[in-house]
Amino acid sequence: MKVIIIGGMAAGPKTAARLRRLVPDAEITIVEQGEFISFGSCGMPFYLANLVPEFSSLYATSYGVARDIEFFRTRKDIRILAGTRATGIDRERKRVSIIHLESQIQSELEYDYLVLATGAVAITPPIKGLETPGVFTMHQPNDALRLQEYLRTKNAQHVTIIGAGVIGMEVADALAGRRIKVTVCEAQNQVLPKLLDPDIAQLVAAQMKQYKVDLQLKCRVKAINCGEDGSVNSITTNQGEIITDAVIVATGVRPRVDLAQVAGLELASNGAIKVDAHLRTSDPHIFAAGDCASQINKVSEQEVYIPLASTANKQGRVVADNIAGLDTEFSAVMGTTVLQAFDLNIGKTGLGEFEAVSLGNNVISGIVSGHDSPHYYPLHSSLTIKLIADRSTGRLLGAQVCGAGEAIKRVDVFSVAIKFGASLKDIANLDLGYAPPYSEAIDIAIHAANTLENKRCGLSRGISPLALDLLKNTQVPICFLDIREPDEVKAKPLSEKDVLLIPAGELRERYHEIPCDRPVVVVCGLGIRSYDAVCFLQSMGLEEAVYLEGGISIWL
Amino acid sequence: MKVIIIGGMAAGPKTAARLRRLVPDAEITIVEQGEFISFGSCGMPFYLANLVPEFSSLYATSYGVARDIEFFRTRKDIRILAGTRATGIDRERKRVSIIHLESQIQSELEYDYLVLATGAVAITPPIKGLETPGVFTMHQPNDALRLQEYLRTKNAQHVTIIGAGVIGMEVADALAGRRIKVTVCEAQNQVLPKLLDPDIAQLVAAQMKQYKVDLQLKCRVKAINCGEDGSVNSITTNQGEIITDAVIVATGVRPRVDLAQVAGLELASNGAIKVDAHLRTSDPHIFAAGDCASQINKVSEQEVYIPLASTANKQGRVVADNIAGLDTEFSAVMGTTVLQAFDLNIGKTGLGEFEAVSLGNNVISGIVSGHDSPHYYPLHSSLTIKLIADRSTGRLLGAQVCGAGEAIKRVDVFSVAIKFGASLKDIANLDLGYAPPYSEAIDIAIHAANTLENKRCGLSRGISPLALDLLKNTQVPICFLDIREPDEVKAKPLSEKDVLLIPAGELRERYHEIPCDRPVVVVCGLGIRSYDAVCFLQSMGLEEAVYLEGGISIWL
Repeated sequence: MKVIIIGGMAAGPKTAARLRRLVPDAEITIVEQGEFISFGSCGMPFYLANLVPEFSSLYATSYGVARDIEFFRTRKDIRILAGTRATGIDRERKRVSIIHLESQIQSELEYDYLVLATGAVAITPPIKGLETPGVFTMHQPNDALRLQEYLRTKNAQHVTIIGAGVIGMEVADALAGRRIKVTVCEAQNQVLPKLLDPDIAQLVAAQMKQYKVDLQLKCRVKAINCGEDGSVNSITTNQGEIITDAVIVATGVRPRVDLAQVAGLELASNGAIKVDAHLRTSDPHIFAAGDCASQINKVSEQEVYIPLASTANKQGRVVADNIAGLDTEFSAVMGTTVLQAFDLNIGKTGLGEFEAVSLGNNVISGIVSGHDSPHYYPLHSSLTIKLIADRSTGRLLGAQVCGAGEAIKRVDVFSVAIKFGASLKDIANLDLGYAPPYSEAIDIAIHAANTLENKRCGLSRGISPLALDLLKNTQVPICFLDIREPDEVKAKPLSEKDVLLIPAGELRERYHEIPCDRPVVVVCGLGIRSYDAVCFLQSMGLEEAVYLEGGISIWL
Repeated sequence: MKVIIIGGMAAGPKTAARLRRLVPDAEITIVEQGEFISFGSCGMPFYLANLVPEFSSLYATSYGVARDIEFFRTRKDIRILAGTRATGIDRERKRVSIIHLESQIQSELEYDYLVLATGAVAITPPIKGLETPGVFTMHQPNDALRLQEYLRTKNAQHVTIIGAGVIGMEVADALAGRRIKVTVCEAQNQVLPKLLDPDIAQLVAAQMKQYKVDLQLKCRVKAINCGEDGSVNSITTNQGEIITDAVIVATGVRPRVDLAQVAGLELASNGAIKVDAHLRTSDPHIFAAGDCASQINKVSEQEVYIPLASTANKQGRVVADNIAGLDTEFSAVMGTTVLQAFDLNIGKTGLGEFEAVSLGNNVISGIVSGHDSPHYYPLHSSLTIKLIADRSTGRLLGAQVCGAGEAIKRVDVFSVAIKFGASLKDIANLDLGYAPPYSEAIDIAIHAANTLENKRCGLSRGISPLALDLLKNTQVPICFLDIREPDEVKAKPLSEKDVLLIPAGELRERYHEIPCDRPVVVVCGLGIRSYDAVCFLQSMGLEEAVYLEGGISIWL
């Protein structure tokens, strides 16, 4: 059996390695236009952050051997044609045309099965001067090396990053951590616009401010300008000019599908190669996997494009299985995406709120704030969780988690729960690992589910921080009832005009002081005491009282 | 509505607080024989470790207010009768007899609903001298305070802990971390015998050795002996005498059911109070929750007794809901138990291997070893995962995770997956959060599922470390084929007699050197290269070759 794999980064080598184990006598060839094989691209921001001291470790095994042509040949009997580009697919004759880039020698390879693992290409935004020296993307292995070298030789003091997506944020964090001044220009009005709802995104933005990153929202970069030496010295945006030493374009990627398209393979609406559950393209002898292939989000059942090395590796195995005659399906995509930036752990799984609404769901959402482990445990940290559920059934549709605490653990829990169609009540009944180093007795994931289920059943009346901002903007007079302890109020007082201070311990005696002629928003630190208070106030006839979800900890 | 709750630690106060919100005019009384309310008992080992500087934080809110009688009265309108013991239940007249312990005044309380949250009592093993000064349990709030004081005044240099269960291990770690010499005496032949299978338990035991803890297995303590001052100065065991300054008895707890039993309520086979899914006892006006109540393990559908504050809190909410007329069920118990000790994160969910076998399952299990994040990421740590599945269906039955890395995240993932009946293939398709700070591109949880699925389908031939030890004990000659790189071999050579060294990169050329007349066990660092190698060797006709699961990293 002859198998040609086009692409040697993640899905390709994984397909090859698995296939070798399943079909010992298969002739397996990987065609890779670059020089690196099985390169850990996701590690590039950490290399830039000087957290990964050796660039070579990004393409080495855990036991220190480089994953190069020799590695694949001697250990796995896999032939790698590096520096070689596939230029065409003859589906009828089952042949791939290739060209060796250096020698320009062309030839043809026969296949029984072809695997497209052609990856993605960085999107080029319509900005003048992108070819100026000092402008980088962060996509190919050499990008990190080149940027590193440029920053060093130019002794760069300021870097501009275009795009506040995952890569933009990781790179901004990496450079800011090296005390390089960073400006992030994002065309949308929030960071991580494809990932987070605005309420969670603004927590990240606030943290960037703390870390002295200059974040420019609604900022469209129009031109990159060079100085006397011919390299970047400023950018022109719709908000003015920014002097800068280097520019990193991180405006996302799109699937690399030129070969597939010319060969007449079907593409999905998102532009990636359409595949079935077995990862077969519209040609049964051609599979596609990794960043070039389209996916189905299991929650929305819509075509999505979420290029990730984790997905690519899973898909590589599935492709190998199906080539080997095993009947294996891929069904992994839940929309899970996570990142670490500015000492925040940030993640999403399932659908975002607007995404869920736009798909026609009857949505209810809620935010909680709290800790990842008990307050008495010295290493506890804060977390904020937003859950999105179907209002009528309580089925969980999505989750977003953000904080210095163990956020991704909760993202994973929600991802698994959503996959199996869990309701908020199911989540309330999860048996998660409890001991003080890991969780409060009621894990914050469970607390989040309980809180939203209360809201869904009409047992609590919360207002989200964003909704409160909207209410304030209407100029309707609001009474803020701050029920925190005096020392908490002193440490972080509310700056609103109309604040009534009644500590929770006095509320049952003093509730008659609360005005009845305007909306009452009860505020505490995390939204727990105030929820309790609103239950009491409602029973006393103050039926319009609401509590601020997540408390002032997340009201900016 | 009059509601009496007996017990003021976890389930009781949670029931009361939730019920107050649901039924504002309910008369809620908590009867608690001790002086502390809503006390974070699980924090006691961390107090002993000097990680929790203020004992009072264990019964304070996150905003620093003590959860005392006044707290519950003013903020929640809940009456607490502390220092008061319930002495009897008159189910016909719906009354509880109580006695105030200090004044010895007796009285009766009427109820519409009664909630038993009577908790657990420490098991007293049959050891002479348990009443000697210097002998402690670690169950009641005062236990930690008293022990702390004793260690200080006696300037204790050596402490003996009887029982290597969760509490025993946490306390051993806490004291060892203070440079007190610790001996742990465990009657079984492994640590954490109720929690872990022997193969995972021995990893923990090895770590204890590294941390200079004196672990005595199969050690039965017969007597505690006092010195001249009347307090402990040694213990007598079946293995000899141990000089020691203090003894902590951590031989587990049993449900406190005397009241329920005298009142004629049905008990489960495990001795705890039998409850239905709504947590009603055999008397529909009496609920039970927390450490006194029996549970059903959702995997085995057997009655189990796993007393945890997390379960108690969830159950408190469920009881309140049902008293308030909501129809809420409790279905949380998956057998999840986790702990941190000796810088290891240790956890289990679902069934253990022997448990699964004894319940009649056709079991297959496998062990993997690896990292929680990529080897190039500087903060990566090691993890070992054992999975237990149904051999015919691939349904996951249980998981055990142990290591310096983020083990509990994986325990939680498996807990959720098992709850929803996930198969190994389902786990291979989970969309877990991937970024270098959190996971390898193939998360080790997914790697563990893939590995066991390979074994289940006959695609790989592994031998577990324990099975290899058994094979070695048969004196059958074995050829160990060590395929690691020369520098790895040099750093940690195999001490076996018959070792053939062929680095993986030379195996395809040199495999004919492998003897055909005896079993071949292929060994590498983590069991990944050796799995690959065995696939190759099998294709070359060496069909009996096996690889060591988890590699030498976990073969002790």
